[in-house]
Amino acid sequence: MSDSKTSNTMWGGRFEGGPAKVMEKINASIGYDQRFYAQDIQGSVAHATMLADRGILTREDLDRIVEGLNTILREIEGGGFDFRPDLEDIHMNVENRLRELIGDAAGRLHTARSRNDQVATDFRLWIRDTIDRIDGMLFDLQKALLGQAEAHADSVMPGFTHLQVAQPVTFGHHMMAYVEMAGRDRDRFADTRRRLNECPLGSAALAGTSFPIDREQTAKALGFDRPTANSLDAVSDRDFALDFLHAANVCAMHLSRLAEELVIWSSAQFGFVKLSDAFSTGSSIMPQKRNPDAAELVKAKIGRVLGAYVAFTTVMKGLPMAYGKDMQEDKEAVFDAADTIELAITASTGMIADLMPDTDALRNAASQGFATATDFADWLVQNLDMPFRDAHHATGAAVKLAETKGCDLGDLPLAELQKIVPELTEAVFDALTVEKAVHGRNSYGGTAPDQVRAQIARWKEKLA
Amino acid sequence: MSDSKTSNTMWGGRFEGGPAKVMEKINASIGYDQRFYAQDIQGSVAHATMLADRGILTREDLDRIVEGLNTILREIEGGGFDFRPDLEDIHMNVENRLRELIGDAAGRLHTARSRNDQVATDFRLWIRDTIDRIDGMLFDLQKALLGQAEAHADSVMPGFTHLQVAQPVTFGHHMMAYVEMAGRDRDRFADTRRRLNECPLGSAALAGTSFPIDREQTAKALGFDRPTANSLDAVSDRDFALDFLHAANVCAMHLSRLAEELVIWSSAQFGFVKLSDAFSTGSSIMPQKRNPDAAELVKAKIGRVLGAYVAFTTVMKGLPMAYGKDMQEDKEAVFDAADTIELAITASTGMIADLMPDTDALRNAASQGFATATDFADWLVQNLDMPFRDAHHATGAAVKLAETKGCDLGDLPLAELQKIVPELTEAVFDALTVEKAVHGRNSYGGTAPDQVRAQIARWKEKLA
Amino acid sequence: MSDSKTSNTMWGGRFEGGPAKVMEKINASIGYDQRFYAQDIQGSVAHATMLADRGILTREDLDRIVEGLNTILREIEGGGFDFRPDLEDIHMNVENRLRELIGDAAGRLHTARSRNDQVATDFRLWIRDTIDRIDGMLFDLQKALLGQAEAHADSVMPGFTHLQVAQPVTFGHHMMAYVEMAGRDRDRFADTRRRLNECPLGSAALAGTSFPIDREQTAKALGFDRPTANSLDAVSDRDFALDFLHAANVCAMHLSRLAEELVIWSSAQFGFVKLSDAFSTGSSIMPQKRNPDAAELVKAKIGRVLGAYVAFTTVMKGLPMAYGKDMQEDKEAVFDAADTIELAITASTGMIADLMPDTDALRNAASQGFATATDFADWLVQNLDMPFRDAHHATGAAVKLAETKGCDLGDLPLAELQKIVPELTEAVFDALTVEKAVHGRNSYGGTAPDQVRAQIARWKEKLA
Amino acid sequence: MSDSKTSNTMWGGRFEGGPAKVMEKINASIGYDQRFYAQDIQGSVAHATMLADRGILTREDLDRIVEGLNTILREIEGGGFDFRPDLEDIHMNVENRLRELIGDAAGRLHTARSRNDQVATDFRLWIRDTIDRIDGMLFDLQKALLGQAEAHADSVMPGFTHLQVAQPVTFGHHMMAYVEMAGRDRDRFADTRRRLNECPLGSAALAGTSFPIDREQTAKALGFDRPTANSLDAVSDRDFALDFLHAANVCAMHLSRLAEELVIWSSAQFGFVKLSDAFSTGSSIMPQKRNPDAAELVKAKIGRVLGAYVAFTTVMKGLPMAYGKDMQEDKEAVFDAADTIELAITASTGMIADLMPDTDALRNAASQGFATATDFADWLVQNLDMPFRDAHHATGAAVKLAETKGCDLGDLPLAELQKIVPELTEAVFDALTVEKAVHGRNSYGGTAPDQVRAQIARWKEKLA
Repeated sequence: MSDSKTSNTMWGGRFEGGPAKVMEKINASIGYDQRFYAQDIQGSVAHATMLADRGILTREDLDRIVEGLNTILREIEGGGFDFRPDLEDIHMNVENRLRELIGDAAGRLHTARSRNDQVATDFRLWIRDTIDRIDGMLFDLQKALLGQAEAHADSVMPGFTHLQVAQPVTFGHHMMAYVEMAGRDRDRFADTRRRLNECPLGSAALAGTSFPIDREQTAKALGFDRPTANSLDAVSDRDFALDFLHAANVCAMHLSRLAEELVIWSSAQFGFVKLSDAFSTGSSIMPQKRNPDAAELVKAKIGRVLGAYVAFTTVMKGLPMAYGKDMQEDKEAVFDAADTIELAITASTGMIADLMPDTDALRNAASQGFATATDFADWLVQNLDMPFRDAHHATGAAVKLAETKGCDLGDLPLAELQKIVPELTEAVFDALTVEKAVHGRNSYGGTAPDQVRAQIARWKEKLA
Repeated sequence: MSDSKTSNTMWGGRFEGGPAKVMEKINASIGYDQRFYAQDIQGSVAHATMLADRGILTREDLDRIVEGLNTILREIEGGGFDFRPDLEDIHMNVENRLRELIGDAAGRLHTARSRNDQVATDFRLWIRDTIDRIDGMLFDLQKALLGQAEAHADSVMPGFTHLQVAQPVTFGHHMMAYVEMAGRDRDRFADTRRRLNECPLGSAALAGTSFPIDREQTAKALGFDRPTANSLDAVSDRDFALDFLHAANVCAMHLSRLAEELVIWSSAQFGFVKLSDAFSTGSSIMPQKRNPDAAELVKAKIGRVLGAYVAFTTVMKGLPMAYGKDMQEDKEAVFDAADTIELAITASTGMIADLMPDTDALRNAASQGFATATDFADWLVQNLDMPFRDAHHATGAAVKLAETKGCDLGDLPLAELQKIVPELTEAVFDALTVEKAVHGRNSYGGTAPDQVRAQIARWKEKLA
Repeated sequence: MSDSKTSNTMWGGRFEGGPAKVMEKINASIGYDQRFYAQDIQGSVAHATMLADRGILTREDLDRIVEGLNTILREIEGGGFDFRPDLEDIHMNVENRLRELIGDAAGRLHTARSRNDQVATDFRLWIRDTIDRIDGMLFDLQKALLGQAEAHADSVMPGFTHLQVAQPVTFGHHMMAYVEMAGRDRDRFADTRRRLNECPLGSAALAGTSFPIDREQTAKALGFDRPTANSLDAVSDRDFALDFLHAANVCAMHLSRLAEELVIWSSAQFGFVKLSDAFSTGSSIMPQKRNPDAAELVKAKIGRVLGAYVAFTTVMKGLPMAYGKDMQEDKEAVFDAADTIELAITASTGMIADLMPDTDALRNAASQGFATATDFADWLVQNLDMPFRDAHHATGAAVKLAETKGCDLGDLPLAELQKIVPELTEAVFDALTVEKAVHGRNSYGGTAPDQVRAQIARWKEKLA
Repeated sequence: MSDSKTSNTMWGGRFEGGPAKVMEKINASIGYDQRFYAQDIQGSVAHATMLADRGILTREDLDRIVEGLNTILREIEGGGFDFRPDLEDIHMNVENRLRELIGDAAGRLHTARSRNDQVATDFRLWIRDTIDRIDGMLFDLQKALLGQAEAHADSVMPGFTHLQVAQPVTFGHHMMAYVEMAGRDRDRFADTRRRLNECPLGSAALAGTSFPIDREQTAKALGFDRPTANSLDAVSDRDFALDFLHAANVCAMHLSRLAEELVIWSSAQFGFVKLSDAFSTGSSIMPQKRNPDAAELVKAKIGRVLGAYVAFTTVMKGLPMAYGKDMQEDKEAVFDAADTIELAITASTGMIADLMPDTDALRNAASQGFATATDFADWLVQNLDMPFRDAHHATGAAVKLAETKGCDLGDLPLAELQKIVPELTEAVFDALTVEKAVHGRNSYGGTAPDQVRAQIARWKEKLA
């Protein structure tokens, strides 16, 4: 017969009572796992093909199954598919519809597999697809950052530690730091992708199967590097979800730092950058406001990614093997984190692409706060052979003097400075301009514009 | 004019560029904060009434506003309201619709308030309502537990520590432990409710307002105990969300323990209880399976509640005052935790109400594993005046002897026992039955059926 | 005999093999639970006294036990006690030493109790003491904040939302917001204290005891409100640890916000405040630096408190009753969070007490950024009866005009403003000074100095 | 001069007030970062050598510095070094002692570096060393698991899903699942190691340096693959700490699952395994107890590793570049997680090595609970060409019949079974023994002993 069934009749042959209403609510995953539809169908086609190649399924059954699955794919993508919570999940929704479409042959598709290996396969495929998409987004973010870096490889700004002016750097150098972070993010997602790229299909419920299947074939057909090695592990492993959540969490952390800088930089007091209208909002009560809402939200988004990481680790804690229903909590955590990180990357890329640094304000800020004090100390070391520690102390005294006089280091009279370091000469003032300071830090990876441009060149080649 | 507007035209008068597409996606909260609709309208009615009472609004405007808001309430509850993402949030969706309905007067409603105090008020009202609903659910859970406790105040089962048989207890005693936990949960939610019950309305954007408003009136009208004391704090405080998440987290932890026990108890090896069909599911590949899916899911649900707690703490970390858009992340964390805990409580109540303990299996298990060894030791202390430590050692020797012989303590010949403790008499065997052991532990709060029944009586009175 | 024993010989009578080396390392808690020594002895004295009053112990034994325990207390406080890891925990270290001191009578102390109820009692007592100490520290923090608030009830500064200048407020008002937060923190700790104040002693291992003990007496002697109601629950309940961690977490969150403001405010760009030397540090390479290290660390400390909360929730997840060794992880989480929050509060109090706001810089900043735009809009509503939404738009136009001209709102010529709102009069300029704006926001809880002073007065009374 | 100094005099030349007492307490890291001593000295030797090779330091100074550092190394390892909190951290403790030992030359060591790049280098070296040690421990764990797997490749036990008996598997198969997990753990730590293996030294405070240093040389000398590419990023990057914490967290999760199984399996009700005395403990009140304390603690330990992950993510959230003191919280999180995971792995290895599976109990359990129901269904598919779904339903009916009769599937009379499936033959009974079932699941990665042995062989080769 080819009639439609509820999950209860499909799996619950031995059961007398129906599920409680709250049970259906807590148990059904179709509300979110329908996002797997493409991967589920893709996996079923590969499985059915292998079954036919191994003589477990007839060619006619295979043809009907594949045609039916393609019909379902079109129905779902066309919006005409009726997802039913009483059928619990995407697997049974698809299979039930297949039975409606092609009759008994549908019942042969589930040979030599179980929902346990099926969902593990779908999930890996979905995360793999998502990683590929995120990689493209991070690429775009790097491009946007590189664009700002190129335009501002020479734009001097204060470099901060402890949010105190430390030494002058360039805006381009600052942007390139985020290019590095995004690069590590891509690398981390790539590790996740590589490690997850094994195929659980054929592990069946937990113990493998007695049908003469070919796991290499399905693995290959689905783009996996190999089948998983142990069936118990294969159905109970969700490391890949945690790896994905970790990669998303570190990425979100990087974006939160960038976002915090954008919030601080666009304050009236800093005035370092202007965000475009496209990423700012007004206030319902204060007409002058120009709020960096997008940056604030990007900054905040790490919360839910970290929350998802915690949520799913907690779920997996202490689970006996093999599959437990607890693991159904894997999907929403990953879906939310994926949506969040994609949104946060895209918004960051947009903000950076549109960002208008105020180069005058940046340069002015770099000229204040004794940003070249280290250069003064280094000059003492390099020209007077003073041990660094002593030079550090002499500089401290000079800074204190300048503070008292309300001027910057470069404005102190030589005579006054010589009271601190008698051997000092006029030449020291040359070291105290921010341009000199920036150009001087020419060590590999340093802030000198030549170094920044070298970094840009390396990355342009990588991203080409 | 009474035309409909987008959020951009409503707040963005000074802006030239429109929002980026990703900006609208990251910024709009209407997808979830529409759950505040009732509280938002309730708050607006109280605010408008106060404005009219203070002469800030005319009576006619008030009437039109209240009528318009009531219309909107009906539209939303009837499903005929069109929530627009371009209007960002519930506040502007309502206000814009009000403008469509009643024209200019709608524009006067926002006098002396801001979305900052408005959303803080809505959120407190919503959590208050939710706490009241959860309290009722926990009450029902306590009732279900009490029902089992009453039916099984005398049913002996093994009490475990370290999942090792420790001493016999009664099933009723075990159920009552969860009644205590649920009692503390209710107390914790009540603390949250009490502490949040202050009204932020009238704090305006952050600094209060120059309109001669009456904050006591709106606070009272909305059932709050008093207005909040500091306007800066009022718009930037989300402690109540964290308090709520904490109460939900501890509650979820309790339920996870109960659920874990149900999972273990319904294993073939324990066989202590049977879950009803209504809370069990079958397998897509193993026809004999009867899986405790609901219990596993309840056990897992703590993950997302803890995740929400972490998510929102992380959001609030280091936020400068007063309101920041980061705080918009408050709602989804709380909504998800609220939905989750309500579902978990309800499913737990259902499982407990339906639970079928196998009293024979429980009693048999209690008779094994030397569960009365402590009683043997206590007998030595009470009858032979042996120091407890020495009695403990003598008992250890007796247990070892029984292990060697493959029997239980009560089956050892007196003569053998007297080799360990010469003064021992026949009377000791009386202490070694599980019934005796259970009835003997008659200290306050102990497992003796009289004590259990006293606990039940106290709680029945409290819950009456 | 009164010889010293190892934990293995004390409890392991039935065991043949000794513990593995790694086992001793993972199992022993004496490295940290020695912090319970005072509470453990306090509990033992109360327990022994009750045993004697109930005739379970002789008066002579009681006297020897109490004298012995007092000796041990002096030994520990004098630093002369040898804590032994092979004796696992504080309970067995004390009991073993007692046996060395007074012989066999020591073995009678453990009658009618178990380490399970003993550690639960010790822990509650310890947290109770800690809460009392923290309450005093938060009191001191409130005093320091009040001191700044009183000194600066009139000092105008920019109020921020989204870190954008919103409306002028006073520095005193800002400080008072933190007084409110600390007040809620104290309330939250007080809730925790109240809820934990029940005595588990006498619950024994899990099931109560057959000795005729008086749990009311020990509860009263130890300052508890009552004995716990269910012995299974009593030994497996650690809600109080989570409640404490939650209270510490919210408190740490508040301090992180204050600390972030101090970091931002002490940047060269803001220049709002100066931190004292006592809470600043220098740099090993940049002699001019004056880093707000204490503020940064306070900001960071929330991490480990939240981490402790997560850690212990995760431990408790899914634990079957009653006691499990997993629960030993409770102590280090709580100890670390307690030490951290005490340190963070004390450092915050010190920073606030020493804080030097630059009132000129604050006032100047408040005069920029169109901070009085809302006042302009409110003036239109109050004097021209314009609906707020329209007034909001007119103000937006005025701000845009001022931006174009590079001046503030108050500097625009009346004629220009009248092009936007023809009915405007000279009187509007009066509303546009920051003093006027601040004094105008006189609603309850608002920023007007009178309101701030009223808040201060209320708190001074509470803290008196 | 070569006198000893406090950190205040070393860095605080410009400061007038000394640090507050609480400041010293919150600020000093020497209490824990002394664990870096070896890496700090290693890094300083490499840095000094490079400085000399580049002519920045004289050969004599180099010799004195290296000799002095070696003396300090010996002092520390010999326990004779006096760590001083007033000198804040390991870097300044070492440098100050160096000044005491060799005088002014010590002051030249800090040329062209800062504590910011120094601590980043030390930390990477320390984590790298720790990863290498952990890798060895995981190797040992895999060996222990392999040992059990080899001994029990044929030992039949019930395979569980949802803690319900699902299908028979072998104990060896089960052990091999954990070998896979440990294998992924090692791979994950290796990824962390690879990604962190870049040298920050020479990034100086944040901007690089004007001294003509050779970063390739120090990188190479310290075993790094290359110098880091961007100095701002280099001093503010702590991704490697999060990567390490993630790897530890997933590993702890795996161990928590194994530990939970050991706890459940060693319960009286399961009785599947016996833990050795070396990893069990007794009870202070119940002489018969044999508690799996080590397993419970291993299960619990994931809490603090996850807590550390959360703690440090929260710290890093929203930190502006470059270095902030907040980042000092990195070390204790990583140290605690490292100690914890090392302890948990070692304890797990010990428990597994000693583990005594009760093969009779395992086999008996596998014969109950209709574990071969899937085999019945598969037989119908394979022999009667029944669609799997229909076979699944027929099996459900057979299981229900057996339940009613209180027997297992294989004990049902053929005639009764033929009422359900008329075509059934005697041959079906052959499929219903657990041995047949286990041997039948011969797909790649399945539970058939041949498959298990193939897994073992592959891993023995890898681990050789």
